[in-house]
Amino acid sequence: MADLYFEDFKVGDMFKSPGMTITESQIIDFAMRYDPQPFHTNVEEARESIFEGLVASGIQTIAVTFKLFLMTGALTNNLGSPGFDELRWLKPLRPGDTIYAVGEVLDTIPSKKHNDRGTVQLRYSSYNQNGQMVFTVTGRQIIKRRSSNDKQ
Amino acid sequence: MADLYFEDFKVGDMFKSPGMTITESQIIDFAMRYDPQPFHTNVEEARESIFEGLVASGIQTIAVTFKLFLMTGALTNNLGSPGFDELRWLKPLRPGDTIYAVGEVLDTIPSKKHNDRGTVQLRYSSYNQNGQMVFTVTGRQIIKRRSSNDKQ
Repeated sequence: MADLYFEDFKVGDMFKSPGMTITESQIIDFAMRYDPQPFHTNVEEARESIFEGLVASGIQTIAVTFKLFLMTGALTNNLGSPGFDELRWLKPLRPGDTIYAVGEVLDTIPSKKHNDRGTVQLRYSSYNQNGQMVFTVTGRQIIKRRSSNDKQ
Repeated sequence: MADLYFEDFKVGDMFKSPGMTITESQIIDFAMRYDPQPFHTNVEEARESIFEGLVASGIQTIAVTFKLFLMTGALTNNLGSPGFDELRWLKPLRPGDTIYAVGEVLDTIPSKKHNDRGTVQLRYSSYNQNGQMVFTVTGRQIIKRRSSNDKQ
């Protein structure tokens, strides 16, 4: 697994995660805890919803996408994130779907205030087993510089 | 609990949720599943991070804020959401913090395509026990119209 520092990120770099199959249990467990709307918790009511069946909470889709992206190793030296923008749920994530995440580097901005870090802007997207984009968001990550490593 | 339809939302309406105290166990459990970065899972390493202590995953902050907001009852007739924008983590959420969520109606837009629904744009924010805003995001929700209720 690559141990990437701020200097290693270049605009256009792509990181692709392994895939994961989401199950009905995972969808209902997450929703009961964090997003108990009927189309996330109740297969009967979900059938009558605009989704015509059970779908994962959009917040679970964010969580699974980010977890998969972490598995690429790209964020080993991530210090945190100030925010995300342009978050879009494009397709429902359904029980049995297998998703993977892709991150593309949009920009790299050295910190003016801290010489040991910089901001990497990424577009995170996740895709299902049919290659359809289910989710996309842009995020900024504060990444440690290699030269700062000795200070840790 | 109010049973609100699209017609009931007015620009400037505010909804305030009950509070919830977040625990170290909840932070570590969520992070192990969805965001296993050391400042979310390991109190020793977290102490050396820029947060100087364990902090909740930003994705858990989204999830808890949305769960608390659902408890206001404002989204009983929510059909789904196309996306969120301008998501910002302003303060870390730490073990023992008690947070509550506030939603403010920013805009209401009747659907041109479907006469049984409309879009309500909201600013969701969450605050800690000291009244500090920890998180904010704008979201669009598709809400059922009252007049469409008989068709359900």
